Amino acid sequence: MLSLKGVYPYLVSPVDASGQVDEAVLARLVDDLIAKGVHGVTPLGSTGEFAYLSNEQRRTIIRVVVKAARGRVPVIAGVASTSIADARAQTEAALGEGADGILAVLEAYFPVTEDGVERYFRAVAEAASGRPVVLYTNPNFQRSDLSLAVIRRLSEVDNIAYIKDASSNTGRLLSILQQTEGRLGVFAASAHIPACVMMIGGVGWMAGPACLVPEQSVALYEAAAAGDWTRAMALQNPLWRLNELFARFSLAACIKAGLDMQGYPVGDPIPPLAPLGAAEREILAKALRDIGAL
Amino acid sequence: MLSLKGVYPYLVSPVDASGQVDEAVLARLVDDLIAKGVHGVTPLGSTGEFAYLSNEQRRTIIRVVVKAARGRVPVIAGVASTSIADARAQTEAALGEGADGILAVLEAYFPVTEDGVERYFRAVAEAASGRPVVLYTNPNFQRSDLSLAVIRRLSEVDNIAYIKDASSNTGRLLSILQQTEGRLGVFAASAHIPACVMMIGGVGWMAGPACLVPEQSVALYEAAAAGDWTRAMALQNPLWRLNELFARFSLAACIKAGLDMQGYPVGDPIPPLAPLGAAEREILAKALRDIGAL
Amino acid sequence: MLSLKGVYPYLVSPVDASGQVDEAVLARLVDDLIAKGVHGVTPLGSTGEFAYLSNEQRRTIIRVVVKAARGRVPVIAGVASTSIADARAQTEAALGEGADGILAVLEAYFPVTEDGVERYFRAVAEAASGRPVVLYTNPNFQRSDLSLAVIRRLSEVDNIAYIKDASSNTGRLLSILQQTEGRLGVFAASAHIPACVMMIGGVGWMAGPACLVPEQSVALYEAAAAGDWTRAMALQNPLWRLNELFARFSLAACIKAGLDMQGYPVGDPIPPLAPLGAAEREILAKALRDIGAL
Amino acid sequence: MLSLKGVYPYLVSPVDASGQVDEAVLARLVDDLIAKGVHGVTPLGSTGEFAYLSNEQRRTIIRVVVKAARGRVPVIAGVASTSIADARAQTEAALGEGADGILAVLEAYFPVTEDGVERYFRAVAEAASGRPVVLYTNPNFQRSDLSLAVIRRLSEVDNIAYIKDASSNTGRLLSILQQTEGRLGVFAASAHIPACVMMIGGVGWMAGPACLVPEQSVALYEAAAAGDWTRAMALQNPLWRLNELFARFSLAACIKAGLDMQGYPVGDPIPPLAPLGAAEREILAKALRDIGAL
Repeated sequence: MLSLKGVYPYLVSPVDASGQVDEAVLARLVDDLIAKGVHGVTPLGSTGEFAYLSNEQRRTIIRVVVKAARGRVPVIAGVASTSIADARAQTEAALGEGADGILAVLEAYFPVTEDGVERYFRAVAEAASGRPVVLYTNPNFQRSDLSLAVIRRLSEVDNIAYIKDASSNTGRLLSILQQTEGRLGVFAASAHIPACVMMIGGVGWMAGPACLVPEQSVALYEAAAAGDWTRAMALQNPLWRLNELFARFSLAACIKAGLDMQGYPVGDPIPPLAPLGAAEREILAKALRDIGAL
Repeated sequence: MLSLKGVYPYLVSPVDASGQVDEAVLARLVDDLIAKGVHGVTPLGSTGEFAYLSNEQRRTIIRVVVKAARGRVPVIAGVASTSIADARAQTEAALGEGADGILAVLEAYFPVTEDGVERYFRAVAEAASGRPVVLYTNPNFQRSDLSLAVIRRLSEVDNIAYIKDASSNTGRLLSILQQTEGRLGVFAASAHIPACVMMIGGVGWMAGPACLVPEQSVALYEAAAAGDWTRAMALQNPLWRLNELFARFSLAACIKAGLDMQGYPVGDPIPPLAPLGAAEREILAKALRDIGAL
Repeated sequence: MLSLKGVYPYLVSPVDASGQVDEAVLARLVDDLIAKGVHGVTPLGSTGEFAYLSNEQRRTIIRVVVKAARGRVPVIAGVASTSIADARAQTEAALGEGADGILAVLEAYFPVTEDGVERYFRAVAEAASGRPVVLYTNPNFQRSDLSLAVIRRLSEVDNIAYIKDASSNTGRLLSILQQTEGRLGVFAASAHIPACVMMIGGVGWMAGPACLVPEQSVALYEAAAAGDWTRAMALQNPLWRLNELFARFSLAACIKAGLDMQGYPVGDPIPPLAPLGAAEREILAKALRDIGAL
Repeated sequence: MLSLKGVYPYLVSPVDASGQVDEAVLARLVDDLIAKGVHGVTPLGSTGEFAYLSNEQRRTIIRVVVKAARGRVPVIAGVASTSIADARAQTEAALGEGADGILAVLEAYFPVTEDGVERYFRAVAEAASGRPVVLYTNPNFQRSDLSLAVIRRLSEVDNIAYIKDASSNTGRLLSILQQTEGRLGVFAASAHIPACVMMIGGVGWMAGPACLVPEQSVALYEAAAAGDWTRAMALQNPLWRLNELFARFSLAACIKAGLDMQGYPVGDPIPPLAPLGAAEREILAKALRDIGAL
């Protein structure tokens, strides 16, 4: 099975007012990110506003990304649903478009039992037929969460090989690593300090900010992968400001505004999500200039 | 504009494992509820598992309900989305199928600003072109909520004429009634005591349990509407047990199981939602027998 | 055992910067409230800032209130602690000062088990040796809560005869009433609509606003007790504005400012609690004038 | 001003059913911990059940700890209150007993404004008259929290020189470090991975588990302080299990049970807090044996 590690930017979804995907700007972004060294790309993560897109839009986005990646790096596509049947269908569609693996998200309206959570992810893994599945857990934005017990059980499934946890609780990642005894590779989210996650045994990170600072992210990853923690922290420190802005401002709005400043007119977030205001754009612009990303 | 009041059962959505809507059982349920005196019906509320259905399934359900209602009572169809564009499209589809009004729900993944919330509901109201819109707010299951300030502003929109609040905070309903100065009719949810909501000035309730106890609900409504509070409380007291079960068990699972016992084979909730277990079914059966509903 | 019903104002605790209790103003307030018809008084409720006072200050306050009440109405004193031993000691001290009953609050830092919660309230009841105990539950400000199962078990204790619930969930009160089968009298808090709580079977309310509007509160109680719900709602409606201000502003600050305007110089809340600002005072003053309380 | 760094065990408070402090066992524990190399001791942290003790008990505990420490390491005593006046008095009492610095906790019942939070900690710092103050923030158990803006402002106060954050959000620590520009030393809590906190620039940790594993904690600290991150992680990994047990079981109960097994009969937590059950004790015993601490 395909092995994943390194920096996976969460791609934005450039969609205009009529719902059309701007395929050209998305393809150019993917091409440039790969040229700058990222180890893979992830369409339809949180930053990709998956929760605001129809299945048809999602499919188009995966198609564009796969085509632009041209097999150079893995494309791990987000699948997110409240229902098992729809999650299966989305997974099959993603693989049909050429995705190399699945980032699996469980959405919820009513509470879901632990058993229901487990059945959902098992169904996605089955539909992924051998391709790697990354469990995604985000207690901030989701109404269900993956307990350690469920994670342990799911780690026994052959192609459930990774987890991306956006809980901001780094200790939880260490518990996951210890309790799954090497069966799950752990990716950090932008709520975690990547250098810390690498030190405790992580394999990389999947996060929106890497769209804006791909080269800096790759340099940090390489220092950490080489065990040069002094250099890793020296590279980590200036990047942290960007993660803080994500927590303060709206995630997708922040990345879309930053890409726009960098010459990728990816448009605004999908209404009623609001774009950054002028003052917020200026703060973001300054943060990007400070780290040489603008 | 059509005026709404009384008991509006939240209809379940009978969907089988392959995603097919069981049109026959849904139509029979609607026909029987109307025969038993309910003042309207509401497909695609929470109990209707809207969050688990595709837009195509939603459309089918509205079509079946409208047809079964045969114009005898208003059909107020649920519209729920994270995006304004999709909410507009759903609203137009619902009216196209013959719905008499819209129950509008804002779903969210990222936080939404007050301004974004307002724009969402204004867009639905516009798309409803003159048909009544019922604002729906449920802080338990939704990630956004309607503040009193936004409710006040939305109450100025011509066809935003009602609100259904599932907060369980009855005082909030009195604040809404006072602050919108007669512009919003207030429907209770099953988290509120209907007799109390009627006493403070409500116009009725929209809730799942009325599917199981339509006649008892109508009797309670009529006592309250006549100002006979002693009789209303005498009718209210035994019905409350059912509302408690909803809070303990899963909402859709509870109504679907009860209807099944009453001879409507509406099936299980949509996976990964779980059906009631045997012990829970027995508790529910007892509660229904105790109030003469089984 | 002493039977409790009616309007019990939560008394403020007038304490100056040096920690001295202003006995004169407290005694005059108690005397005036009783003259205006309240059915009892409650020192050391939330509004009484119990959480900010030493046991010695608490004792002084009870002594002053008991003396000022002169046996005309019951004095139900608040007891609040994190530890069983201290709660016992406070209860004995309160009875030693002449309190007629105890309002029992469990504070918590670490989570408490259901069994621990039950043991705490049983210990207070035992220490109250035959005097009535009112369970107090406030999920908004406390880190522990009384589950329905624990309330049911505690209602079997002889002198645990009442509950005051500040959850804002009126349906929970109906569940308590039904499940304790007449063993617990229910008092509303300012988070509930008193007229509603009376209609479902409550015995009165314990709340801060009654300090500011004793006569209006008593009139409302009498209408409700007489089953004249139309008149009760007519009296309830204008009073509700005051409850809303409590939810918006800080509770103790609001009552202390209002009493100051009414000629009771009770001082500011205990620092770091902040007094109302000028704009808030003006809003409160207007609300009081609108209902003839200033 | 005294400079703090290294491992500071949060001491338990051995108090019997009658409220007596067991001075002998506390003194022996302190003596042994210092002999095993800890860099300081902290009576009256969370683990010390400060929220369950009277001011007199607190004073006794500080006195015993100071005496047992015999000036070999700093004693940083916990001060915790809801009111500024009481916090000042506690601080003065702690210094009067010989404490070398203050760990300052703000408790709350009603919400506190940012300004109120700031005034509270400034008052403690003033009362500490030149001794170092460690800000303590624990969003899990406290009703108020220190925002980054308030922390920044408080870091300008001369003797507010440290912060101990129990949020479990390690990224927040990095933000604090960056935004206070060297003015605040950061101590980790048991919710964080000490090795990670050291890597991002922390000065040590204050936590309950160090009572049970002082030598292992000191070894980990020394590896981290020497920049030997490979060795630090090798030492960190087996210790993490103990931190997990704290999150699962009750904090004070866990440490008290472990010390009892190690030959320090410190008794049970203060009722209604419950001691560990037999099964939990066995899990804890196994975890301690696995790391050579039993």
